[in-house]
Amino acid sequence: MIVVLKQNPDAQQLSTLIDWLKEKHIEVHTSTGELHTILGLVGDTAAIDADLISALDIVEDVKRVQEPYKNANRKFHPENTVVTVGDTQIGGGTLTLMAGPCSVESEEQIVAIAKSVKASGATLLRGGAFKPRTSPYSFQGMGAEGLELLKIARQETGLPIVTEIMDTAQLPLFKDVDVIQVGARNMQNFDLLKQLGRQEKPVMIKRGLSATYEEWLMSAEYVMAGGNHNVILCERGVRTFESYTRNMLDLGAVPVLRKLTHLPVIIDPSHAAGKAWLVPQLSVAAVAAGCDGLIIEVHNDPEHAACDGPQSIRPETFAEVAKKLHGLHNYLSENA
Amino acid sequence: MIVVLKQNPDAQQLSTLIDWLKEKHIEVHTSTGELHTILGLVGDTAAIDADLISALDIVEDVKRVQEPYKNANRKFHPENTVVTVGDTQIGGGTLTLMAGPCSVESEEQIVAIAKSVKASGATLLRGGAFKPRTSPYSFQGMGAEGLELLKIARQETGLPIVTEIMDTAQLPLFKDVDVIQVGARNMQNFDLLKQLGRQEKPVMIKRGLSATYEEWLMSAEYVMAGGNHNVILCERGVRTFESYTRNMLDLGAVPVLRKLTHLPVIIDPSHAAGKAWLVPQLSVAAVAAGCDGLIIEVHNDPEHAACDGPQSIRPETFAEVAKKLHGLHNYLSENA
Amino acid sequence: MIVVLKQNPDAQQLSTLIDWLKEKHIEVHTSTGELHTILGLVGDTAAIDADLISALDIVEDVKRVQEPYKNANRKFHPENTVVTVGDTQIGGGTLTLMAGPCSVESEEQIVAIAKSVKASGATLLRGGAFKPRTSPYSFQGMGAEGLELLKIARQETGLPIVTEIMDTAQLPLFKDVDVIQVGARNMQNFDLLKQLGRQEKPVMIKRGLSATYEEWLMSAEYVMAGGNHNVILCERGVRTFESYTRNMLDLGAVPVLRKLTHLPVIIDPSHAAGKAWLVPQLSVAAVAAGCDGLIIEVHNDPEHAACDGPQSIRPETFAEVAKKLHGLHNYLSENA
Amino acid sequence: MIVVLKQNPDAQQLSTLIDWLKEKHIEVHTSTGELHTILGLVGDTAAIDADLISALDIVEDVKRVQEPYKNANRKFHPENTVVTVGDTQIGGGTLTLMAGPCSVESEEQIVAIAKSVKASGATLLRGGAFKPRTSPYSFQGMGAEGLELLKIARQETGLPIVTEIMDTAQLPLFKDVDVIQVGARNMQNFDLLKQLGRQEKPVMIKRGLSATYEEWLMSAEYVMAGGNHNVILCERGVRTFESYTRNMLDLGAVPVLRKLTHLPVIIDPSHAAGKAWLVPQLSVAAVAAGCDGLIIEVHNDPEHAACDGPQSIRPETFAEVAKKLHGLHNYLSENA
Repeated sequence: MIVVLKQNPDAQQLSTLIDWLKEKHIEVHTSTGELHTILGLVGDTAAIDADLISALDIVEDVKRVQEPYKNANRKFHPENTVVTVGDTQIGGGTLTLMAGPCSVESEEQIVAIAKSVKASGATLLRGGAFKPRTSPYSFQGMGAEGLELLKIARQETGLPIVTEIMDTAQLPLFKDVDVIQVGARNMQNFDLLKQLGRQEKPVMIKRGLSATYEEWLMSAEYVMAGGNHNVILCERGVRTFESYTRNMLDLGAVPVLRKLTHLPVIIDPSHAAGKAWLVPQLSVAAVAAGCDGLIIEVHNDPEHAACDGPQSIRPETFAEVAKKLHGLHNYLSENA
Repeated sequence: MIVVLKQNPDAQQLSTLIDWLKEKHIEVHTSTGELHTILGLVGDTAAIDADLISALDIVEDVKRVQEPYKNANRKFHPENTVVTVGDTQIGGGTLTLMAGPCSVESEEQIVAIAKSVKASGATLLRGGAFKPRTSPYSFQGMGAEGLELLKIARQETGLPIVTEIMDTAQLPLFKDVDVIQVGARNMQNFDLLKQLGRQEKPVMIKRGLSATYEEWLMSAEYVMAGGNHNVILCERGVRTFESYTRNMLDLGAVPVLRKLTHLPVIIDPSHAAGKAWLVPQLSVAAVAAGCDGLIIEVHNDPEHAACDGPQSIRPETFAEVAKKLHGLHNYLSENA
Repeated sequence: MIVVLKQNPDAQQLSTLIDWLKEKHIEVHTSTGELHTILGLVGDTAAIDADLISALDIVEDVKRVQEPYKNANRKFHPENTVVTVGDTQIGGGTLTLMAGPCSVESEEQIVAIAKSVKASGATLLRGGAFKPRTSPYSFQGMGAEGLELLKIARQETGLPIVTEIMDTAQLPLFKDVDVIQVGARNMQNFDLLKQLGRQEKPVMIKRGLSATYEEWLMSAEYVMAGGNHNVILCERGVRTFESYTRNMLDLGAVPVLRKLTHLPVIIDPSHAAGKAWLVPQLSVAAVAAGCDGLIIEVHNDPEHAACDGPQSIRPETFAEVAKKLHGLHNYLSENA
Repeated sequence: MIVVLKQNPDAQQLSTLIDWLKEKHIEVHTSTGELHTILGLVGDTAAIDADLISALDIVEDVKRVQEPYKNANRKFHPENTVVTVGDTQIGGGTLTLMAGPCSVESEEQIVAIAKSVKASGATLLRGGAFKPRTSPYSFQGMGAEGLELLKIARQETGLPIVTEIMDTAQLPLFKDVDVIQVGARNMQNFDLLKQLGRQEKPVMIKRGLSATYEEWLMSAEYVMAGGNHNVILCERGVRTFESYTRNMLDLGAVPVLRKLTHLPVIIDPSHAAGKAWLVPQLSVAAVAAGCDGLIIEVHNDPEHAACDGPQSIRPETFAEVAKKLHGLHNYLSENA
C-alpha cells in the first residue's frame, strides 16, 4: 500500500501514523519529494483499512498495490479450481453447457426441455423458480413448486440443476439444488453471500450490472471466507450507454479473470444480448475467449415464455449451437 | 403501447396477436407503412407484458408510452406525498436534515453526535448498525446492539432514527425503527422490498449504482403495491467512468422525479462525493435543485471512524452547513 | 416515426401539425387512447426532424421506427461491402490483419516491422505519423516525415498502409495513403468526415469512446453521403466504469453491425485492452465473433516504444497469433 | 510517480531503469516488500512518460502522484483566472449569463433574441453558425453568413459573441469572434486545440461526452501550452446509462474543478437536459454549486427552431430565470 502525504504534513500526526502502522507490523519506507512525501507500506496490508488512512488530515491519497481478495486470488492459489457437480466438472479445461428456460412453467415444459438440451450436450439444467422481475406486476416465478419440478426434471434426465436464490429465507428450500445461483442484482447482497459461505453447495455468482472485477471477486471472497470454496463466476453483460442490446457482454473478462483468479468463468450470452438472434454468435466468441462454459436460455415456445422470451433460443437452435461450440472447443484445445 | 411489426408480417400470426389483445380489452389501431406496420394499443396496457410481445416472430420492436408504475406515478396522484415521522414531516415544502455517523460505534459516540446534530437543526438521526461492506474483512457494523444504541440516542434527543436493513431476516429487529433504509446495493432485492411493503414503517430507497429513474420508481412500486405508501427516494450518486469522486451526484434527478412521482426526494451528498470537503457545496446545490432534504454523514472523529471516514464532516462543519441550508431554503421559498 | 401526443392536445395545433406533415407527403394515422393519442407517420420520415416535432407543445414524445442512416443501412443494401486496397480485400469472408507500431519512429524501425509482420501474414501495415495524445507534453508523432517513412516501408514490402488523419488541413498529405483512419476522438469531427467523403481513399472510422452503434453509423453516413462508399468500421473498446483495462472491447458489436450494416468490421484489441498480454486471447475471440479483420499494434521493442508500448506485442508473438487466427478463421469458415 | 515492480525483478533491468531515471534528474527511493518492490520517483516527473515505464517487463504498475497538467493546475497558480471579454468579466465572483439560440437563422431572429436576452441581464450572446449535427441530413448551420449576422447582433446590442468553431480551416473567420467555443465532440481535436493556443481570443472548452476531469484539463493545457491562457471550461452533461435526459449534468464538477484548477467554470443546462422544462431548476442548482456562469439556449419560437428546439426556453422564461439567478447569486455572495 502506498500513502501519498500532502505537502508539509504535520510532524506530530505523521509520527502517530507511522507508530500505529508499526504496531500492526507494517514496515514504512519514506520517500520525500518537493511536492509530496510518499510512504511505502510493506507487510500484510490487507488488514489495513485504506479508507481509514485516507481520512487523515495529512493524507492526500492512498493507493493499493496488493489485491484485497485472498481466497479468490490466483497469486495465492495458482491451480485452477474445478467444481464437481454430480458426474460433471466445471472448470479445468472442460466446456460446460448449462441450458434451460428462464422460468419453470410446468412439469411438462421443464422435463421436455431438459430431455432436449441433454440430448444436445448440456450437462446442467437451468431454470428459474424464484424470479427477480423489475415490475411487481410481472410473473414472479413458481417458487417452491418450481424447485420441485426442477427436481423431477433432474430425476428424469440425470442433469444436475442450477437455479437462483433471492433471499436468505429461501435457503432451506435450496438444500437439494446442485448449483445455487446469485443473480446480478444480488451480487452485493452480503447477508446472502455470507449464508452461502456457510453451506457446501457450489455457488455461481453473476456479475452485478456495473460491478468492477474487484468488487465481483470480493463477492466471491465473501462466500469463500465462510469456508465454501466452490464458487463459479458468471459474466452476463454490464450496463453502458448503449441500449441496442440489453447489456454489453464483456468477453475481455474471461482472460482478465484467468489472470486474477483460479475460479471457473461461465458466460451468459442470453441476458447480455436480450435478443435470441445474437446468442449463437456470442456463444462462439465466448468459447474462443476461453470461458469454462455457457449458460443459455432455451425455450420450446419462446413466443409464449412467461418471461425473457425475446432472448431464448429454441431447442433445435441450441442443438446446432452446442454442436458448434463443442467442435470449436475441441479445435482450440488441440491448437492451443 | 406501440408495436412495430416487421415488413410483410405473417397474416395469420398478426390476426392471432390482435385477437389476443382484444381479449384483454385492448383496442388496436393499425397504421400500415411501406417498410413497417405500426399497431397503437389503447387501454390498460400496464397489464400487458411488453417482453412477451417483442418475442413474437412478426414483431420488430415494442415501445411503451405509459409508465409501468402506477402507485408512484404523479399522473395518477398529483398531490405531493408527505411522510410523517414522529413530530417531523418529510416532503411538502419542508427541508429535512438527517445526520449522523456512518456506523454506530458506541453509546457515547452516537449520543454525542445525536445531541450535536439536533442542536444544529437535524430532524432525524442516521446511523448504521448493519453495514454493507465490499470486503468481508472490513467492519460489518454492530448489528442488533447498534440498533439498541440508536434507540438510546433517540430517547436522549427525541430524534427519530433512520437506519439500513440488509436482509428480510432482520425485519423483526426493525419494528421500532422510524425510517427503514434500503441501500443502493439492495435496491432490487425484491424479496426485501415486498416484505417492506407489508409493514407500515416509512421506507427510504436509495438509488442503485446504475439504476434508471424507471427502475428506481419500480422498486418504490414494489413497496407501494404491498400497501405501504410511505416511501422516500434517496439519490446518492451513480456510477460512471469518472473515478475522482466515489460516484457522480445526479442533481437533475430532483426536478425529474418531481415530474414523474409524488414521493419525497432526499439527497445523500456524502456517499456521492466520498470526500468530506465536497459535502457542503453539494448540499447547497441540492437544496437549490429543490430536494426535500439531505442525509449527511457526521462524525466527531472522522479520522478514526470505523468506516467511511473520508466522507464524514465534523459536527462543527455540519452546524455551519445546516445553518446555510436552512437560510437558502427560506430564501428560495420566499423567492419561488 | 411515431408521435405520442400529450393528453387533450390543442385541436388547432394538432391540425397544423397534421397539415404540415401532409405537405411533406407523410401519411398520418391517428390512434386515440384515454391517456395518449398516437400518430403513426408513414412515408419518407428520414427527412423529418424528430427534434422539431418533439419541441411542439402538444407532443410528449417522438419515437423513430426507421434507422436514420440510409447508405450504411443493410436494409437498403443487403450485399456485404468489400473494400479493395491494392491486391487485398477487406470484407466478404476474408480475414484482414493490419499490423505495425503505434508510431513510426525511424525508417529502420518501420521497415523492419513491416517485413516481419508481412512474413507473418499481415496484409496491411499500420503506423501512426500524426498521433492524438492526451497530453501536449507527450510525443506527437513524426508527422509528414512519418508518412514518408511509411511509404518507404510500403515500397519495401508491398504492404498497403493505413494511418490516422487528425485534421482537414492534413488531407493533401494523405493523397498517397491507402486507408485513411479516423480516430475515436475524431469520430464526430464532422468537417473531417465531410472532406473524407469527397475523396476516394477508403476510410476506416474508429468507434468513439462512448458512441452508440447509431452514432457510429451516422459518422459512416457522413462519408458515404459525400459519395465515398469505401468505409470500414473499427471497434476499439468503449469507456465504462471498469478501469482495469483501458477500455471494454464490445465484441457483440460484430454481430450487431452485421445486421445493421453491410460495411466491413475490424477489431482493434490493442487499444481496447491497453495491455499486451490480453491481445492474443481477445484477437481469437474477435475472429470467432465474426469480424472481417484485426488491427494489432506490433513493436520490435515495446519497452522503448515512443507511445503505447504497454499494449504492443512483439513480432514473434504476432507471428504466433496470426497463425492461430488464420487457422481459426479457416476452421470456422469450413464449419459455418 | 510511484513504480510498482513485479516480484523478483531482474536486477540488470532494474539497474538500467534507475540509471535512466537518474539521468533525467529523478531521485529514486526504493521500498522492498515481500510481494512487491516500490520505487518512489521524486523530481519533475511530468516529463516522464508513465506509459513507457509501465511497458517494462519488470514493472507491474505505475501510479501518478502529481497531476499531468501544469498551466491549468491551481497548485501552481492559486489565483482564480478572470477572462475579460469586452466590458464583461468571466470568473472572479461574477455571474456570467450567455444566452441565445442554438442556431443563427436570420438577422431578424438573432437581433431580436439578442435584444431580449440583453434586457434580461445576459452579458454574452451565444449562437451557432457552424453546427455539429449527428446526421448529415440535418441543418448544418448558416456558416460564415451566420457569423456575420452574429456580428450585426453584437453591433446592435453591444453583447460580445460566443460561437463554436468546428475545424482549423475556419479559424480565419473567427478573428472577430469574442469567445471561441470548442464543442464536446471536439474536446480532443488536438490540432484544433493547438491552433487555438496560438491565437489570443478566449477559448471555451466544453467537456467531452465521457471525458474525465483530467482529460478535460489536459485539453485546456493544450491551449495554454501554446501561450493562450484565456481558457474557460464548460460542463454540459456526460453520457451515462440513463436516457431520460439527453445527458447527466455533473454539478459536482464545479467544486471539483475549483480545487483542481483556477480556470472559470460555466454550466450549460440546456444541452445537459435536452428538455426546456428542466433548464430553470438546473440553472438555479448550478449557481448554488458555485459556477461562474451559465450558457442557456433561448429561442423566440422553439417549436420552429432549426435545431435543438426541445431544449430552448422562450425569452420571457429566460427573463424570469435570469432574475432569479442574479438574486440567488447575490444572496449566496452575501451569505458565503
